[in-house]
Amino acid sequence: MTAHKIVVIGAVAAGPKAAARARRLDPEAEITIVERGEIISYAGCGMPYFISGAIKELRQLVCTPTGVPRDPAFFQATKNIKVLNLTEAVTIDRTAKEVEVLALTSGERRHLPYDKLVIATGGLPLVPPIEGVNLGRVYRLNHPDDAVAIREAATCGEVKRAAIVGGGLIGMEATEALAANGIEVIIVEMLPYLMGRFLDPEMAAYLTRHVNAKGAHVYVGGKVVRLVGDAEGKVTKVITEWREIETEMVLLAGGVRPNVRLTQEAGLALGQTGAIAVNEYLQTSDPDIYAGGDCVENVHMVTGQKVYTPMGSTANKHGRVIGDNITGGRTAFPGVVGTTVLKVFDFNVGRTGLSESEARRLGYEVVTSLAPAPDCSDYYPDSELVLLKLVAEAGSGRVLGGQAVGAGDAIKRIDVLATALSFGAKAADIGMLDLGYAPPYSTAIDVVAHAANIVENKRAGLVRGVSGADVKAMLDAGEDFVWLDVRSPQEYEQSRIEDRRVKLIPLGRLRSRLEELPRDKPIVVFCKVSLRGYEAARALAGAGYSDVRIMDGGIVAWPYEVTGAA
Amino acid sequence: MTAHKIVVIGAVAAGPKAAARARRLDPEAEITIVERGEIISYAGCGMPYFISGAIKELRQLVCTPTGVPRDPAFFQATKNIKVLNLTEAVTIDRTAKEVEVLALTSGERRHLPYDKLVIATGGLPLVPPIEGVNLGRVYRLNHPDDAVAIREAATCGEVKRAAIVGGGLIGMEATEALAANGIEVIIVEMLPYLMGRFLDPEMAAYLTRHVNAKGAHVYVGGKVVRLVGDAEGKVTKVITEWREIETEMVLLAGGVRPNVRLTQEAGLALGQTGAIAVNEYLQTSDPDIYAGGDCVENVHMVTGQKVYTPMGSTANKHGRVIGDNITGGRTAFPGVVGTTVLKVFDFNVGRTGLSESEARRLGYEVVTSLAPAPDCSDYYPDSELVLLKLVAEAGSGRVLGGQAVGAGDAIKRIDVLATALSFGAKAADIGMLDLGYAPPYSTAIDVVAHAANIVENKRAGLVRGVSGADVKAMLDAGEDFVWLDVRSPQEYEQSRIEDRRVKLIPLGRLRSRLEELPRDKPIVVFCKVSLRGYEAARALAGAGYSDVRIMDGGIVAWPYEVTGAA
Repeated sequence: MTAHKIVVIGAVAAGPKAAARARRLDPEAEITIVERGEIISYAGCGMPYFISGAIKELRQLVCTPTGVPRDPAFFQATKNIKVLNLTEAVTIDRTAKEVEVLALTSGERRHLPYDKLVIATGGLPLVPPIEGVNLGRVYRLNHPDDAVAIREAATCGEVKRAAIVGGGLIGMEATEALAANGIEVIIVEMLPYLMGRFLDPEMAAYLTRHVNAKGAHVYVGGKVVRLVGDAEGKVTKVITEWREIETEMVLLAGGVRPNVRLTQEAGLALGQTGAIAVNEYLQTSDPDIYAGGDCVENVHMVTGQKVYTPMGSTANKHGRVIGDNITGGRTAFPGVVGTTVLKVFDFNVGRTGLSESEARRLGYEVVTSLAPAPDCSDYYPDSELVLLKLVAEAGSGRVLGGQAVGAGDAIKRIDVLATALSFGAKAADIGMLDLGYAPPYSTAIDVVAHAANIVENKRAGLVRGVSGADVKAMLDAGEDFVWLDVRSPQEYEQSRIEDRRVKLIPLGRLRSRLEELPRDKPIVVFCKVSLRGYEAARALAGAGYSDVRIMDGGIVAWPYEVTGAA
Repeated sequence: MTAHKIVVIGAVAAGPKAAARARRLDPEAEITIVERGEIISYAGCGMPYFISGAIKELRQLVCTPTGVPRDPAFFQATKNIKVLNLTEAVTIDRTAKEVEVLALTSGERRHLPYDKLVIATGGLPLVPPIEGVNLGRVYRLNHPDDAVAIREAATCGEVKRAAIVGGGLIGMEATEALAANGIEVIIVEMLPYLMGRFLDPEMAAYLTRHVNAKGAHVYVGGKVVRLVGDAEGKVTKVITEWREIETEMVLLAGGVRPNVRLTQEAGLALGQTGAIAVNEYLQTSDPDIYAGGDCVENVHMVTGQKVYTPMGSTANKHGRVIGDNITGGRTAFPGVVGTTVLKVFDFNVGRTGLSESEARRLGYEVVTSLAPAPDCSDYYPDSELVLLKLVAEAGSGRVLGGQAVGAGDAIKRIDVLATALSFGAKAADIGMLDLGYAPPYSTAIDVVAHAANIVENKRAGLVRGVSGADVKAMLDAGEDFVWLDVRSPQEYEQSRIEDRRVKLIPLGRLRSRLEELPRDKPIVVFCKVSLRGYEAARALAGAGYSDVRIMDGGIVAWPYEVTGAA
């Protein structure tokens, strides 16, 4: 019997991982990886940190932790895997079971026979169909070569302002990276708020405040119409529907689309998202061809629907699953829950599952909570705030998703929620989790449990919440209500909402000053984070007030203007 | 109808929480809390940080985040709850449904009638039955008064050395706290290693190295026999089975036992752990009496057995559940998974579920993995190591527990595991979790998934692991084997195991130097963390070597002596 022949197309994440796993399972197989680019097995997610200067040398992104470059010689020596880099896969002949490849330097063409083929062709940057995208100093961030070019531009001394087109994942990471080089950054986002594919508006508002505080400008709700250059062909302006922005550099950060040309030409099925359709074993419509990484679609474990969620971590898991299945195994990939985390200046930002907007769009009836809380005991020196939003199904209480933003450790909470979502957790389950508690790490009731408890209180009818945006709508409609602030006079001095409806009665005085509150008007109660607000609302309900609502997340999460010193 | 009468005994964590929750659910109830001490609702877990000086004032432990003291006036004003502090509950008359209380200042006795009674009497420090425990400068750490006394001693200038009797949770937190005051700390632990109730020996060894590096001394495996004092009655020596330790201060940190005198005298049932027996609704053997916090036992969700696991976070959850159930609700407390986390100098330490030792003692057949890995991308500047151990049931692959120790973010991984354990996760589930990935937060395959993958590789027979302790036993027995180090010569120079069996062949050379390895001897392979070791072992297996084992966790987790510069 001749050795099993495995060909892998693409050598960034899913491809090399599938090959390495296959090698460990099948010592005899002939394994070949074909890669169009020169460098392979690089840490693409590290590129923003190379641009920022946090990572000093590009080689750190292509070396093992002990400093050995992951190049073709490394794959040959350590894994007995042949890597053909600077080689393009031109066509797949499924009948002959061969891949035609073209060596880009020599021009030589060859046919690589396969028993099992792995497609890991990754993603391509989405470039808007506008004039000027090929001007000088207009960049994408898809490959380490891009990162090198951006870092050169950012450090050449000629670029003082940069415009980032797209306030999503790459755009936000790049904002921090460019700002770290002393560049004034302008973010231009077509959607009405930042991170619109990941966060709900009030969470994005909290993030935007931080981005502004760090000196970056955010222009949302306007499309870029064209880019304008100077006589030398260098970009000088971004023209949007609403304004002209002077700039010396542009990063097109409009997201990623699956690279499926080869797959399509081979007659393999694409899914409804436009990415390669695969079954749970990551098999394409041809059972001898597998696909993984940024070129395939995934099952969303919360909705059961197909989604396109390119992510380096998912690509690595795909690689492992494919490595099993091309060597005789039968491992299933369970899907994703849409977890996305990123650092934006000093803020940690994450989300998992569905946002409220997504959930509503999909027809779920939802209950949400918005909990600003310290990430560790408030008396512990390093305590920082996390604003956590939980989205649950109203009827069943099942958690649909969570978002967390803040200087505090938001990411731990997102990982807890991502884990819980994988098991179909209900909000009540989250409230009872036996999470690690010690003052440097959490509060006795962790923010994630606290948010779950609020959801349960709302479901039980103990609390009626109203979002900041809904209160704003009430104001805009000129509605009459009592806007009850139950904080202390000192807190009121420091920051307050200026409106004639606002009435300050500290919680400790509320029970003795009930006569000051009318019984015939709605009462919207809040405090700093709405814990005291909750206490107050229960006291009012107990005293017979019938229309009492709590402003979700208190003044901390109020996304509009606040007056005061702090 | 007269108002529902609720009496709560104990005002630290579970008690006030139960009362506050009950108030929110029942605005009419008469709620009274009885507390022996003066201060109430304090953050007991913060005491070590008050001793260390990280928390400047004791009042921070008894105030709300906005600085309002949680005293009886606060409970009255904000929650309409009466608190009788400096008042002892003397007897419970279950027939009359009354609690006899004694006001400690006035000596007055009263009878408080109840419809529902809540016992939240907490825990008491375990004091060893030895001579000298009442000498001067011998402390326990059970109450803020203790913390004040310890801080006074630690900062008075007379104490240069302190002995801590007990290397468990409180002992380790106190070690850091006293060392922060410039005191030389000696830890005396009866068990053969630190944190013996929580960690397995190799994890404790990794922690002990750090504690030693920070200048604290660790004496394990010897009981304290007595304490010796000077003429003034101040402690001067700790006498153990094996040595005499000079000291100027002693902290008895032998753990906590449930405070059950009152409960026992009332004829209520205790459980097999000696703590109060409660059902899932936290009802005692008397259906009108509930109990929660450090005085009750819990169900361990992994084993289904009753355990005594006092923890502030659990007490708070108990309070919420009890608050529901004493006001007509029917909320169940699902139990705990034994999560414990703590900070020890610069190390984060945590565990959840069962340790390997516990699991074996309970009769489980287990597979374990030991994964040292960076807590975020190795190229990212702040990357730190986490040593993570996973314990799974051999047959089913169900995860039984996990431990994590290191300068890296161990706690996030413990929370992920604690969540997964609550849902009966298998190792394969952990490997496929959609955890948040970005270079500042994790690696593309997070350490927790990596550890789960190793478990699965072992279960599939791809890897045979051998622990450091087992290799040591092989050495001690004079066994002949090849101890194959597949790191680079540079790494070997920096730190190496000195033994005639050690053979260095870097992974990249292994496939071309196979003839140097005998086929008739066992091979124990390792590298820094045993990732390359795994690659090497698979290469050897592929080349027909039949007895190849990987040393779990590599040289990083080797708990014995290492030679070299680093």
